[in-house]
Amino acid sequence: MTSDAQAAGQTQAAKKAAAPARDPWDLPDVSGLTVGVLGGTGDQGRGLAYRLAKAGQRVIVGSRSTERAEAAAAGLGLGVEGMDNAACARASDVVIVAVPWEGHARTLQGLTAELAGKLVVDCVNPLAFDKRGAYAVRPEEGSAAQQAAALLPDARVTAAFHHLSAVLLQDPAVEEIDTDVMVLGDSRADCEIVQALAARIPGMRGVFAGRLRTAHQVESLVANLIAVNRRYKAHAGIRLTDI
Amino acid sequence: MTSDAQAAGQTQAAKKAAAPARDPWDLPDVSGLTVGVLGGTGDQGRGLAYRLAKAGQRVIVGSRSTERAEAAAAGLGLGVEGMDNAACARASDVVIVAVPWEGHARTLQGLTAELAGKLVVDCVNPLAFDKRGAYAVRPEEGSAAQQAAALLPDARVTAAFHHLSAVLLQDPAVEEIDTDVMVLGDSRADCEIVQALAARIPGMRGVFAGRLRTAHQVESLVANLIAVNRRYKAHAGIRLTDI
Repeated sequence: MTSDAQAAGQTQAAKKAAAPARDPWDLPDVSGLTVGVLGGTGDQGRGLAYRLAKAGQRVIVGSRSTERAEAAAAGLGLGVEGMDNAACARASDVVIVAVPWEGHARTLQGLTAELAGKLVVDCVNPLAFDKRGAYAVRPEEGSAAQQAAALLPDARVTAAFHHLSAVLLQDPAVEEIDTDVMVLGDSRADCEIVQALAARIPGMRGVFAGRLRTAHQVESLVANLIAVNRRYKAHAGIRLTDI
Repeated sequence: MTSDAQAAGQTQAAKKAAAPARDPWDLPDVSGLTVGVLGGTGDQGRGLAYRLAKAGQRVIVGSRSTERAEAAAAGLGLGVEGMDNAACARASDVVIVAVPWEGHARTLQGLTAELAGKLVVDCVNPLAFDKRGAYAVRPEEGSAAQQAAALLPDARVTAAFHHLSAVLLQDPAVEEIDTDVMVLGDSRADCEIVQALAARIPGMRGVFAGRLRTAHQVESLVANLIAVNRRYKAHAGIRLTDI
């Protein structure tokens, strides 16, 4: 079965629960929001911080160490600030979680108070490697994003930015990044804020792509992109067609 | 972490196992192969049969019932033949499995002899639905494709064609389908045959996207495409960028 055949087979109840038919590209103005990046000293975090700051967003890089956060921020320029993770979370409206999967649960457990009420964007991909390449790890909660939601009951958890190349994000010679950002979450308003943030980066669109319970496959797909990158010597991204 | 950062972190052993650096777009001539489609009377199977026959491939539609297979074949024209599933498997070089997930294991268990030595292309998406939409089901074997490999130890199992819109496939007014086909498998030669088959359909590329053990997320991603289709009133497909 395919996506449209299955959609046609849905129950009336599911149809009633469908989103109202307003323009899905009508997204909020997010230019005034402060974006924190936990794990902002890593490759992906630094790359996202760079792109969002370049787009005009106020950005705070977070790290366990204030010194390393400040050093990363200074290296990025563009007005990016550096703080320890807790201060970064407190000072931000939107908090991107870009820590390694191994530190995911521990980092969030230490920030439950700071992240209460915040819009959290999880972009962590639980993967492991062996000699045959990368493969998905299945968190007990279903996905990294669902683990975040379980650990942060008072935060507004979404998932996005999984499929971006840190090499392209960090390369100042790259003006546009040819990719869509799949945004997942259970609150339409929160997803739209994240979609609008993604759309600030030249070349990117933010596309709503399902509820948080469908995050595992989006996170895991990075294993496939790694296989693509190896075979084609590329920094592959994903575009959704027909939208 | 992102795909390239993680790839860079791979072990030497993984690097040695990488594919040789020959042109990944240099694919075999598959125009002489006969393609069978099990479940070829369903929407996706019929759509794939139509597109491949239109591209000049010899195509056999398979069904539990010879009569229904013949009726579907007659409806498609283009020289498509109809047979029961066992005869279809015997007469084909490449066998696409397009049955509903509910009938997947049972269908394959009944065809172990007929599928021995054949190149099997699983395109089944194990999904379930409730009032909140579609979600992935995790087969005990890891994925539908891995279930096929477990049930068919003498077949050459690959996975592909998961993300195609049956509506677009079946619409004769649609000349080109703007999408890539992610092809998964553990044999490069077999994957390349499937990639070449996909590339015969105007608009499509067949892209190698990992080993069979990474099929679950590719199959499950249809749940996200269903969410995209509902939100954007579309028949979404996937393009891989930078390749």
